[in-house]
Amino acid sequence: MEFFKALSINDVEITDGFWQKKQEMLRKTTVYAVYNRFKETGRFDAFKCNPNAKIAPHIFWDSDVAKWIEGVAYLTQNEKEPELEKIVDEVVLDIEKNQLPCGYFNSFYIAKEPQNIFKYRDCHELYCAGHLIEAAVAYYLATGKDKLLKLMLKYVDYIEKRFKIDRDTCFVTPGHEEIELALVRLYDLTKDPKHLDLARFFVIERGKSLEDGHFLDWADSKYSQSHAEPKNQDTAEGHSVRAVYLYSAMADLALRDGDNELKVACEKIFDDIVKHKMYITGGIGSTHIGEAFTKEYDLPSEGAYSESCAAIGLVFFAQRMLILTGEKKYADVIERVLYNGFLSSTSLDGKSYFYVNPLEIVKANHTRHASVKNSDPLPPMHRFEVFECSCCPPNIVRFLGSLASLIYTYNENAVYVQQFASSSAKFNIGGKEITLTQKTSYPDSGKISFVASDDLTIFVRVPEYLDSGKISKNGYIPLNLKAGCEKSIDFEIPTMLIEANARVYDSAGKVAVVHGPVVYCLEQIDNDEDIFNIRIDKNTSFDLGYNDELGVKTITVDAFAKPASSSLYSQFSTERKRIKATLIPYYAFANRGESSMQVWSLVE
Amino acid sequence: MEFFKALSINDVEITDGFWQKKQEMLRKTTVYAVYNRFKETGRFDAFKCNPNAKIAPHIFWDSDVAKWIEGVAYLTQNEKEPELEKIVDEVVLDIEKNQLPCGYFNSFYIAKEPQNIFKYRDCHELYCAGHLIEAAVAYYLATGKDKLLKLMLKYVDYIEKRFKIDRDTCFVTPGHEEIELALVRLYDLTKDPKHLDLARFFVIERGKSLEDGHFLDWADSKYSQSHAEPKNQDTAEGHSVRAVYLYSAMADLALRDGDNELKVACEKIFDDIVKHKMYITGGIGSTHIGEAFTKEYDLPSEGAYSESCAAIGLVFFAQRMLILTGEKKYADVIERVLYNGFLSSTSLDGKSYFYVNPLEIVKANHTRHASVKNSDPLPPMHRFEVFECSCCPPNIVRFLGSLASLIYTYNENAVYVQQFASSSAKFNIGGKEITLTQKTSYPDSGKISFVASDDLTIFVRVPEYLDSGKISKNGYIPLNLKAGCEKSIDFEIPTMLIEANARVYDSAGKVAVVHGPVVYCLEQIDNDEDIFNIRIDKNTSFDLGYNDELGVKTITVDAFAKPASSSLYSQFSTERKRIKATLIPYYAFANRGESSMQVWSLVE
Repeated sequence: MEFFKALSINDVEITDGFWQKKQEMLRKTTVYAVYNRFKETGRFDAFKCNPNAKIAPHIFWDSDVAKWIEGVAYLTQNEKEPELEKIVDEVVLDIEKNQLPCGYFNSFYIAKEPQNIFKYRDCHELYCAGHLIEAAVAYYLATGKDKLLKLMLKYVDYIEKRFKIDRDTCFVTPGHEEIELALVRLYDLTKDPKHLDLARFFVIERGKSLEDGHFLDWADSKYSQSHAEPKNQDTAEGHSVRAVYLYSAMADLALRDGDNELKVACEKIFDDIVKHKMYITGGIGSTHIGEAFTKEYDLPSEGAYSESCAAIGLVFFAQRMLILTGEKKYADVIERVLYNGFLSSTSLDGKSYFYVNPLEIVKANHTRHASVKNSDPLPPMHRFEVFECSCCPPNIVRFLGSLASLIYTYNENAVYVQQFASSSAKFNIGGKEITLTQKTSYPDSGKISFVASDDLTIFVRVPEYLDSGKISKNGYIPLNLKAGCEKSIDFEIPTMLIEANARVYDSAGKVAVVHGPVVYCLEQIDNDEDIFNIRIDKNTSFDLGYNDELGVKTITVDAFAKPASSSLYSQFSTERKRIKATLIPYYAFANRGESSMQVWSLVE
Repeated sequence: MEFFKALSINDVEITDGFWQKKQEMLRKTTVYAVYNRFKETGRFDAFKCNPNAKIAPHIFWDSDVAKWIEGVAYLTQNEKEPELEKIVDEVVLDIEKNQLPCGYFNSFYIAKEPQNIFKYRDCHELYCAGHLIEAAVAYYLATGKDKLLKLMLKYVDYIEKRFKIDRDTCFVTPGHEEIELALVRLYDLTKDPKHLDLARFFVIERGKSLEDGHFLDWADSKYSQSHAEPKNQDTAEGHSVRAVYLYSAMADLALRDGDNELKVACEKIFDDIVKHKMYITGGIGSTHIGEAFTKEYDLPSEGAYSESCAAIGLVFFAQRMLILTGEKKYADVIERVLYNGFLSSTSLDGKSYFYVNPLEIVKANHTRHASVKNSDPLPPMHRFEVFECSCCPPNIVRFLGSLASLIYTYNENAVYVQQFASSSAKFNIGGKEITLTQKTSYPDSGKISFVASDDLTIFVRVPEYLDSGKISKNGYIPLNLKAGCEKSIDFEIPTMLIEANARVYDSAGKVAVVHGPVVYCLEQIDNDEDIFNIRIDKNTSFDLGYNDELGVKTITVDAFAKPASSSLYSQFSTERKRIKATLIPYYAFANRGESSMQVWSLVE
C-alpha cells in the first residue's frame, strides 16, 4: 500500500556539494575517529568475549560496533576501503568464534553473565541483535560477504524460538526498540515471512501487558512506549530514541502489511511530534530525565536533550512515512533535521560529537555552583570524542553514510526529488533503467539542475520555508525532462525571523533567524554584547557574510541592547544601544571553544 | 563605633495596621500551627532524650524548638500567654533533666550518639546551641524566668572549655554559623567579656585552615564561608543562610570591637549581595544545589532557592549594618525583604510555609516528566505545614514576633523612623524618657503620623522607590515634633514597571510591577491568557483594585498577547490581541491552589 518506492542505497550516490563534503569528512576522518576511540575503550576487543578482559564490556557495546560496521558498509559501496573491511572481517571472525551453539550472540552476556541471557528487559540484548542484523544486511549488500549475515540468521532463529515459539524468556518485547526495524530490513533481503512475522510479533506484543518482564524501577511504562498497544498509541511518549525506532517499525509494518490501524497511529504520532514536540532544529526529546519526550509545547532551549540519535531516528520515521503516504511534509521534516539537529551533532572537523544538542548555552551557568563540587550542569558546552554511552557517534557514521537514500523516492511514472544534493541515481521506471543526475550547491544557492538519461517526469519538492501553495498545489514542481537535456529550477533562499507557537513557554518573546533550511544562532564569540541582551530589530535587514574559519555563511542583523547600569533593579526604560549582531548556522556552533549560544533571541 | 543605637524589642510594640494583623495571625494561629506540627513529629518529645524513642530525633531539632521558644518569648512580652509559657517551661525542665554534668546539651547526641559529641563539623551542634542561647536570652528578658538562661550559661562555659581553651574538638568553627550571633546577644545581656571573646573566636578562626575538621564531601570550602578569614572576604558565598548569619556576627563584632577590617568586609559583602545577588523580592540564594549564592547576576526566577531563612538572615545582616553605619540603604533592603521575600514565606492563613520562594512557577513543568516516576521538580507549587528540615517555620515565628525592633533606630539627639508601622516606642534621648507613637496604614497609604510625649526630632526614611534625592539629601526627612502635637508626612505610593540589570540573563526582556514596596506577580488563576504569553504594555496605566478573597490590592495593566496558532513555528508576526492582565502582591501567591506564577513578565 505504499505511495512511493524507496531507492536502494546501492542505486544512488552523492557526487558533489554540501553533503559530499560531509561524506568525504566521514570517509577520511570520522569513521577512523570513531574506530580509534572504540578500539582504545575496548569495544572491539569485547567481541573476543574474554571473561577476564582488563576492560569490562558493557551490555550495549555490540550495538556501537555494529552501527560502525553498517557505516563502513555504506562507505565501501562506492569506493573500496580494504583497511576498514579488514577490521570488520576480524570482528565477524570473533563473532563466529564466540557465538553460542544455539545461535545467541552478545559479547557482554557471553563473557560476563551467561546465566542472565534474556532475563532483563532493559539490558539491550535485542537492541544489540538488531544493530548486528542491520550491519549484516548492509555489509552483505555492499560487499557480497555473507558470513555475518549467516551468523545473524542463526541468531534470529534462536530469538524467534525463545521469544515467539517457546516464549520462555523473562520479557516479551525489548526495552529498547531496534530489532523490529532490523527484522523488516532482513525480510526485505530474505523475503522469508518468518522474519517479517517476528518483527510484527515484537511490535504488536508491546504494551499488551503492563508487567512485561523486569524493567527499570524509576520509569513509567511510557518510557519504553509500553503503555498501550502500538496501534492504539497516538502521542509521542517516553525515551525519544526508543520511541522513534518503534514508530519507524510501525510504519514499516503498516507499509508491508497494509495495516491501516498502524498507519493511522503513525500519522497521529508524527503530527504530535511536529505540532507540539519538535525543536526548530528538528531535535526531539525535551528532557534529560529519561531522555524523553515531555508534554506539548514544552521545548526548553537550554534544557533540551535533543539527542543526536533521536534526530536520526526521526528521519527514519519520516522517511518511512513519506514512502507510506507520499505526503511532502515528511520530506520537509527530514530537511529540517539534516541541516540542523543532525548536523549539529558533529564538529566541523568530524572528530567529536554531541550526544545532547542544546538550543542554548549559558556559559556562566557552568560555573555558578561555586560552593559545590562536581556540579557542572547540562548541557555540555563542547563535543566529545567518545562517550561512556557512545550510541551517537557510530549512528552518525551509518546515517551520514546512507544519506543518499533520502534524496529520491519514485513510483511507476515519475521520480520525486525530496532532498537537494548533487547526486547520481538509477531508477527503474516503466521497465526502463534511467539515470538521473542532480547538480546543486544547495543550500548555498537554490539553483538545482537535472539531467536524465531518458525522458523522465520528475517532481521537485518545494522547500517548506517557501510558500509552496503559491508555487505548486501539492508542494512539488513537475519537470518533464527530455533525455540528455538539462533543466533547472531556481528557488529563492530567504532569510527570515521565525517565532514559536504562543504556547511555547521557553521561546516567548523571542525569534530565531533562518536562512533557507538552515537555523542560525548567536554565538558569544561573534558578538561583543552579552548575547542574551541582544534584541533583534523586528524590521532588520539581513547582511550575508562568510566566516572563513568555520567555512559558513554568516548573517548580520540590526539589533538593540540595553545599556549597562550599576544598579540591579531600576525603573523600566526603553533606552537602547543600536548594535549589529552576527549569527552563524546552528550546526556550526561550539567549534571555536566554549561559548554561550542561543537559537532564540529577544526581538524588539 | 556604632552610628545608631538599636531599640530593644522590650521597648517597642506594633499597635495597629498591616503588621499588627500579621502579628495577630502569629499569636492566634502560626505559633500553634508550628507547635502542633513539631509536637506530632516528635520535636518536643526529643528533649526527653530517650534513646529508645519511637521517633528518631534529628541533629537539628533542638534549633527548631529553640526558635519557636524565642518566638513565644516575643509574644509574651506584650500579652501574657500562659499556655505557651507552660509548654516552654516543660521543655526547659527536660533540658535541665538531661543536660550532661559537663553542661553539654543536644537531644540528638545525648540520646543517640554521645560518643560523637563535637566530632562532626556539619552536625549542627553549635547551631543548635546558638538557637538555645538566643531562646534563653529572649525568654529571660520577656518573662524574667532564668532557668533556661542558667542552663545555657553552663553549656556556653563547656563550649568555651572544649573549643577555645582545651581545643580538643574535631573541628574549630561550626559548619553552620549561628552561635556567633547568639554569644554576642548573650554578652549584651551578661556584659561578661568571655561571651564576646568566644563569639569573636568562632568568627575569626573561620577560614584559617582549609581542613577545619570533618566536613561534607560534596561541598567546597566556600559552602560554609571557610574559604578565607572573614576579614578578607568581600563577596557573598556559599549556603546563603549560613552566610548571612556569619556576616551578621561579623557586623556585631565590628560594632562592639570597633573592628574596621570586619566593617569594611561587611560593607563589601553587602554591596555584592544588593548589586549582584538579590532577587527583586529581597530573596537570596539562586540555587538549591548547596542552597547557595551563585555568581553575579545569576538570578533565575523558576530556579530561585531564596529560602525563607535566608531572607530573614539578610534582615539580620542589614539591621546590624544600619546600626553600624547609619546608612539608609540598609533600611531600604529590610523593607524590600519584609513586604516580599519574607512575607511570601507564609500562607495568608498563617498555617503553611515556603522553604523555597520561587519568583516563577510553570505549572506544566511539574507534570512534564510523564515517563519517569517521582520526578516532580523544584520549585514546589504550594506551602507546607512542616518540613523534614523545618528550619523556616519557627524562624518565621521568632522573626515576625520581633519585627517591631526594626522600626526605629536612635542616637543621642534624635529618633530615626526606618520602617512604617503603627507602633508605640520608648526612647531615652538626652537623658529623657520619650514615648513616640506612629500611626499609618502603610503600605496601603503613604500617610504616616507621629506624636511624641516630649519635644523630639525625628528623621523619617524616604522609601527607596521614591526619588529620595529630590526630597531629602541623606534620604531622611526631618520632623521636629512638639510634645503632644501630631505631625504627618504623606508619601506617594507609586506603581511602576521595574527592570533588572542588563546582565541578569533570566529577566532579559521582562519587567516586574511594583506598588510602593510591594512586588506584584501574575498568577494564572487571575488571567485567561497563559501568563507567559502576556506582554505588559510599556505605556500601561495601572488600575488598582481589590481582591476580597485574598484581602489584597490588585493591579490591572494593559497588555498584549500573541494569538493562538496551530503551527509550532511560523514567520514572525507583530499581530497581537489587546488584553488586560491582573496582578496580585507576590507575597499573596499560592493561596488559591496550584497555579503558574511569574514576577517577571514580557514587555512590549
